[in-house]
Amino acid sequence: MVQAAVMGYGVVGSGVVEVLTQHTDSIARRTKEEIGIKYILDIRDFPDSPFQDKFTKSFDDILNDDEVKVVAEVMGGVNPAYDFTKRLLESGKSVVTSNKELVATKGAELLRIAKEHNVNYLFEASVGGGVPIIRPLSQCLAANDVIEIAGILNGTTNFILTKMIRENMPFEDALKMAQELGYAEKNPTADVEGLDAGRKISILASLVYGKHVYPQYVHTQGITGITLEDVAYAASWGGVIKLIGQVKRLEDNTLDITVEPMLIEKSSQLANVDDVFNGILVRGDSTGDVVFYGKGAGKLPTASAVVADIMDCVKHLAKRKYLDWADGDASVVKPYQETSYPVYIRLSGNLPKQKISELVNTLFVNPREIVRSNAKPNEVAYAADDMTVEAQEKAMAALEENGIEVLSKIRISDL
Amino acid sequence: MVQAAVMGYGVVGSGVVEVLTQHTDSIARRTKEEIGIKYILDIRDFPDSPFQDKFTKSFDDILNDDEVKVVAEVMGGVNPAYDFTKRLLESGKSVVTSNKELVATKGAELLRIAKEHNVNYLFEASVGGGVPIIRPLSQCLAANDVIEIAGILNGTTNFILTKMIRENMPFEDALKMAQELGYAEKNPTADVEGLDAGRKISILASLVYGKHVYPQYVHTQGITGITLEDVAYAASWGGVIKLIGQVKRLEDNTLDITVEPMLIEKSSQLANVDDVFNGILVRGDSTGDVVFYGKGAGKLPTASAVVADIMDCVKHLAKRKYLDWADGDASVVKPYQETSYPVYIRLSGNLPKQKISELVNTLFVNPREIVRSNAKPNEVAYAADDMTVEAQEKAMAALEENGIEVLSKIRISDL
Repeated sequence: MVQAAVMGYGVVGSGVVEVLTQHTDSIARRTKEEIGIKYILDIRDFPDSPFQDKFTKSFDDILNDDEVKVVAEVMGGVNPAYDFTKRLLESGKSVVTSNKELVATKGAELLRIAKEHNVNYLFEASVGGGVPIIRPLSQCLAANDVIEIAGILNGTTNFILTKMIRENMPFEDALKMAQELGYAEKNPTADVEGLDAGRKISILASLVYGKHVYPQYVHTQGITGITLEDVAYAASWGGVIKLIGQVKRLEDNTLDITVEPMLIEKSSQLANVDDVFNGILVRGDSTGDVVFYGKGAGKLPTASAVVADIMDCVKHLAKRKYLDWADGDASVVKPYQETSYPVYIRLSGNLPKQKISELVNTLFVNPREIVRSNAKPNEVAYAADDMTVEAQEKAMAALEENGIEVLSKIRISDL
Repeated sequence: MVQAAVMGYGVVGSGVVEVLTQHTDSIARRTKEEIGIKYILDIRDFPDSPFQDKFTKSFDDILNDDEVKVVAEVMGGVNPAYDFTKRLLESGKSVVTSNKELVATKGAELLRIAKEHNVNYLFEASVGGGVPIIRPLSQCLAANDVIEIAGILNGTTNFILTKMIRENMPFEDALKMAQELGYAEKNPTADVEGLDAGRKISILASLVYGKHVYPQYVHTQGITGITLEDVAYAASWGGVIKLIGQVKRLEDNTLDITVEPMLIEKSSQLANVDDVFNGILVRGDSTGDVVFYGKGAGKLPTASAVVADIMDCVKHLAKRKYLDWADGDASVVKPYQETSYPVYIRLSGNLPKQKISELVNTLFVNPREIVRSNAKPNEVAYAADDMTVEAQEKAMAALEENGIEVLSKIRISDL
């Protein structure tokens, strides 16, 4: 019997306890060891819980108990999870987590500490919830050079966009519905502004490229600016708008890494990933495109990923998994202004259409007009080829100088 | 430097050599060991190959060389691969393979031998080509009870069906095109009759349920009987016909395991897996549905999965991976006649339609007529609810007795 502890008895934590206690036999069969839960750490009281004897409010109970070999940190947030994780690893205990914020901001340091103390720090649940992605990336696809990763990494925003696309529901109504259904928090900022997706693409990029990519270096833009007009133009163009976390290695060895809404062609494997589902596309030089798809959040999917990591730690108590990346800095990332991509723009102006068209032709690369039914008066949209963001912004400024308002600018995906 | 050997220099074998020699640095960085190729075993000569010094025709060169720690068996077929693999494992070498036929027929025995000699026998490449599935199933989803697996496991038949569905191309023409494109062998039996998919679902079932499910116990039916009329009716019904390998555990603990064409609703995640792509849906009690999607075959995708297994062996030279299942027999599987599912039937008869409808209503459970444009004279089709195969066959015999010909009978998927 190997003893584990669970820190945090919220949605994921209670799920971890549920999965561990309800699958005892099959887990023991697969790990060749029973896994017990010795402590559950939470500052709250749970008088109705059947696990009374396991609750503690003292972190030291876990830290100082040599019997505890593996700890699931499912508290979320950087503090005090960071301090706790560090001290547990230093005391020779393995830690598994679903805490994407902590992994994204402190991953390199915590992995180094784990290595120094010959224990494991695993975080399959931090990206994709129940969808396996960390382990396939670090093991199954290990013989590949990963050319690009692009993913729908946040279920809340994907739900909102799906409602906008399928039911023509305005952003505000779709957000309200997501909140009522429990998919979005009361304060939805981390989801709708792309921060959550930014942490996840940071983790995937660090894993694949071997250097920590901190979230502050990732250009991050949410979906609050997306309108039903853009959704309609995307349909005319032949695609949908999705919030995509994307990273690719450029020729100068820097990373083009971003979270932003993108126009995706209908034929892309990511275009049909709808509702609260996540989909992650990995383009390898040998495997081609491999896609992982499933529920990216939720109590039991996430908990089962945490428990799978616990099981892996138990099977590798004396042996480290090779999950590892070095520290990184801003130089890892190509400044967003210098990245280059094709772009969709939606304009409005009182000039004659012929005049607008001439201007756009001068300022953008190979612009093609997109036509939609029920377009507003004076509204016109284009898809144009690759330009640096800097050049795009200059071109947009020139349009504004000529009295043409730029209502939207959205990246067009190359997937 | 750890030395490896490659047995078989066909499509996959040459890909393995290519991936190993072209990714030397990144592989060394990830495994913390360089991996060398000491031998390539093939009975043929390759006078133009740059790897002259590595070729051998003698298996004993590999078997007797203590420096060789890991061997990739990519010869295919049961003999002599079975004998070679056994002797390598017994001599303390790890073996990795893409040979689904060997794993499906001898997996339990070879895993047992590997265990006895404290070495690894890995076969990520045997199912899904470059799509990771074996490792995610055995590790990431280990905390789940897997309720069901359903997959499009054979790219050749999926290509043919896609041509039939999208372009209304008859089976024979689509097969010919697949052969011209190199997707199908001259003798296409193993693909079009479902044998290849049968081996793959056998492997997945054995892995998940812990007992070897031999292919001879898997009901296996190919796509040679599928007509464009069935494709048209499937579209009217709201779906597509796909060749599905499927396994689920029944309440009496036996497995409903089958390879057969199925009607899949358009909204299913498997419905849009087209052309030569594979898609595998895993339904876990905690994760819900997780889908893995990508190229199921081809030189480099398959080779990269083999190399990832080699890397895993090199990282675990002193430690076994917990990949393991016990022997099994016919009792593991529910006899196909006793399994129960909803069904699509297409009939032809000279009786008045009202009369046919009355008969079908008596013989089938809740039949709903499916209507298509351009139906042939006297042709009629129905979708009906769950019945055992035995009951279906009795009902069909009763129809035939009444002068109604049963032109098609296809399972309707519950996914």
